[in-house]
Amino acid sequence: MSLDAPDAPADIRRLAVIDMGSNSFRLVVFHHVPGHWFRLVDEIREPVRLSEGVRNGRLRRRALARAHRAAELYAAYCRSAGIDVVDAVATSAVRDAENQDEAVEAISAGGVLPVRVLSEDEEAHYGFLGAVNATTITDGWFLDIGGGSLQVGDVRDRELVRSMSRPLGAVRLTEAFLSGDQQSSGEVKRLRAHVRDALGEVKWIAPRGGRLVGVGGAIRTLAVMHQRRENHPLFDPQGYLLTRAHIGELLRDLLASPAPKRDSLPGLKTDRADIILAAALAVDEVLHATGADGVEVCAHGLREGVMYEHYVPGDAQLITDVRRTSVINAAERFGYMKAHSEHVARLALAAFDATAALELHPADPGDRELLWAAAILHDVGVLVDYSSHQRHSGYLVLNSGLPGFDHRELAIVSLLVRGHRKGMPSPGPYAPLLRRGDEDALAVCAAVLRLAEQLDRSRAGEVRGVRCAVRDGALVVGLECDGDPTLALWSAEREQDAVQRAFGLRLELEAV
Amino acid sequence: MSLDAPDAPADIRRLAVIDMGSNSFRLVVFHHVPGHWFRLVDEIREPVRLSEGVRNGRLRRRALARAHRAAELYAAYCRSAGIDVVDAVATSAVRDAENQDEAVEAISAGGVLPVRVLSEDEEAHYGFLGAVNATTITDGWFLDIGGGSLQVGDVRDRELVRSMSRPLGAVRLTEAFLSGDQQSSGEVKRLRAHVRDALGEVKWIAPRGGRLVGVGGAIRTLAVMHQRRENHPLFDPQGYLLTRAHIGELLRDLLASPAPKRDSLPGLKTDRADIILAAALAVDEVLHATGADGVEVCAHGLREGVMYEHYVPGDAQLITDVRRTSVINAAERFGYMKAHSEHVARLALAAFDATAALELHPADPGDRELLWAAAILHDVGVLVDYSSHQRHSGYLVLNSGLPGFDHRELAIVSLLVRGHRKGMPSPGPYAPLLRRGDEDALAVCAAVLRLAEQLDRSRAGEVRGVRCAVRDGALVVGLECDGDPTLALWSAEREQDAVQRAFGLRLELEAV
Repeated sequence: MSLDAPDAPADIRRLAVIDMGSNSFRLVVFHHVPGHWFRLVDEIREPVRLSEGVRNGRLRRRALARAHRAAELYAAYCRSAGIDVVDAVATSAVRDAENQDEAVEAISAGGVLPVRVLSEDEEAHYGFLGAVNATTITDGWFLDIGGGSLQVGDVRDRELVRSMSRPLGAVRLTEAFLSGDQQSSGEVKRLRAHVRDALGEVKWIAPRGGRLVGVGGAIRTLAVMHQRRENHPLFDPQGYLLTRAHIGELLRDLLASPAPKRDSLPGLKTDRADIILAAALAVDEVLHATGADGVEVCAHGLREGVMYEHYVPGDAQLITDVRRTSVINAAERFGYMKAHSEHVARLALAAFDATAALELHPADPGDRELLWAAAILHDVGVLVDYSSHQRHSGYLVLNSGLPGFDHRELAIVSLLVRGHRKGMPSPGPYAPLLRRGDEDALAVCAAVLRLAEQLDRSRAGEVRGVRCAVRDGALVVGLECDGDPTLALWSAEREQDAVQRAFGLRLELEAV
Repeated sequence: MSLDAPDAPADIRRLAVIDMGSNSFRLVVFHHVPGHWFRLVDEIREPVRLSEGVRNGRLRRRALARAHRAAELYAAYCRSAGIDVVDAVATSAVRDAENQDEAVEAISAGGVLPVRVLSEDEEAHYGFLGAVNATTITDGWFLDIGGGSLQVGDVRDRELVRSMSRPLGAVRLTEAFLSGDQQSSGEVKRLRAHVRDALGEVKWIAPRGGRLVGVGGAIRTLAVMHQRRENHPLFDPQGYLLTRAHIGELLRDLLASPAPKRDSLPGLKTDRADIILAAALAVDEVLHATGADGVEVCAHGLREGVMYEHYVPGDAQLITDVRRTSVINAAERFGYMKAHSEHVARLALAAFDATAALELHPADPGDRELLWAAAILHDVGVLVDYSSHQRHSGYLVLNSGLPGFDHRELAIVSLLVRGHRKGMPSPGPYAPLLRRGDEDALAVCAAVLRLAEQLDRSRAGEVRGVRCAVRDGALVVGLECDGDPTLALWSAEREQDAVQRAFGLRLELEAV
């Protein structure tokens, strides 16, 4: 499966997925051409609080009235907006309700809006399907915290081999354990012990470590809160790593603030302010129980999973290469110059490999992949404006939600596209995201990307390949050309500084 | 003439305009569909310094050799890049050269690249044509400072009714008056007197005031320098207002710094560092001579003017409504939802007019136009990512180079699109660009834009119109609907806060 451009706009289908959770209802609209591309184009969130005040397992009349109203309005929206297919799903709040019939009557607005009540396995399946197509995880853990339930899954070779679901969602935990405005340490301890015991009953949950991918609104909110707390330079929670230490910091902030004042914490919406503490405590317990170092935040989950079933019917719902697909999908969306971009990528990778063979850098395959992504995306900013387009390319890379890349990787790709012309990239606000050695890798990748861009100055692919050698303190780059090498030689000569900075060598160019 | 989307990609023509000036040569590539749209897609600047060291009016051999080389490379580029039409023009350096034949031989690379040497009138015509299609000036002054010549024009009803051209370009003035590294006050005085005398000889140049639009690389550089100096929140010089006071500040900075150190001034490129002082002094003299308060910086000029001749042959080269064209052009480029955006614009303007009739705001026509622009562009950020698309719309507005809007206006449109959903707009870094009263206008425009957006929540145009009344401390908005008003009533109810903030009134909604 790939995400190519549409065959014809006429093929576009409008799909509404309605996710009826314990805390909020959400209608999202995807436009898609089955098997080719999809895009989120609209979203209506309604803080229904379906399981608020639940007693003896029965959803309350007021909550059901709110749900009924929201369902009516979603149905009205779908009728007006010309939606082709509506797929409404309900999760644990309805699944577990003693008065399920009454609940289904309400959430379907008396039958106007047909709703599927998902089983535990279906809920886990859809959540995981959405997530696995938006991350690079192959083995590890999957965590989904909703308002009603908490699901933990065991991931092997990109499959969810087993999963558990317990009524430990943020709304339920809050109602059961965190009664007043100010939480006592006793309440917190009892909540933790309850979650720990529930996880402890599942044999395959053991602190073996590994990656953990987390989905759901509460986890996204925790990520945004930590991003705001740290003045993190990226806004989107997708790809953010919430470490155990980060969760600890958020817990301290939350416990220091009485519930009614929590919505003044940056990044926390009013209608989540009371339940976020329970979510953070549950996440912390899951990290302890699994031994994972942190949560890799994934903004795709249940709703995208439901979408994939419509988008690609059958068994081929796994995207083969998530990163490659993200990059190509974004490039297509921004109307990239395909032939030029692919040629620059070829030349840049050839120069990267040739200089690696000369032991001028460590030939890190991760760096190489980021270089490829930057080469494909380097010019997309031209869509915004030619002037300073390197800056616009950088913005688009950081903000177009490229699933499969973490924030450090996004920062590197962004710095590379920004540095493909004009001034060389300096990490600036992204410096805190970089690791030791990244600045050297950036200098190397920027140099070969700039060289490749200059070698395809005419955008006609005249330079077919490059050979590299070191001679008398110079990096000698030999150009294999179809036709006249004049323009390429002259253009590439401008990259003396970039080559000096990356390799400590002069640049010499020759046609071979 | 309008700038609509292409009929078919096959119609796209590739035009290279080569501008051979006294300081730098520049090749720019436009893709265009004649009469429909154009876009700058590539640019190669070469600091040739054609008139460096000119003696007795003769361009020097070394300068001509550099020009010859640049011309060869531009020709090679055009051959490789599959350019359909090449239009190379030379300006005063060649026009005024005693050894013009030799110069033409060099800049045409021995005849390989045919070049037109523009007359004074042609140069002024093209520069003005580029500028007038990128600003809203109807009457006032036109100023173009190149390396070789300085041109001042008298603008009446969007026409250049007369113009003068003198060899007072930045390179020539520098060579003639500013010899050493550190300028003496005597040198500066003599340069000023020379420019003043030359302007004084032209009868129609008198300090009558009015708007002044300025083009050319030196003026763009002065704008960027001042923007950097003030930590101005926008990068693009297009639409920046360089006041007399700003020029004074830049002159003080430049005079306090010896020429070889000037390139450390933020925004000043090395290859302009020595000539920018002369340009600033000349601009200052033109402001005195015309009585204009400042320079409205226009990034379009000679090259765009030459482009227009290919883009729209004949006499219809004036864009009728520059702002409207800019907005629609950007919206089309970003793939806007045309019907929805136009409908939101209609409803927002209707609500603006209806509340104006109730004397709830001053009904400023400027505000109304900015509201229209924001309504058309409010959703363009969806192209980047649905999540936080209001933020991306704001970025695209600020950075897509909307000719015809000044920076204050761009900031207002950007704040409005950013505030069309989620949190209400706060000026933040753009506060210094706003005038007294703008925050009130922002609150009004944001409220009616948000209302309009909610009234077209289904994007199906069901709400045809709005009526407004004030009743018992409430703004009563009556919806004229085709079909079911449920969704619109429910959606618009969310804008209580925006209405309260703008008008100090509750919001009441009813179907009529």
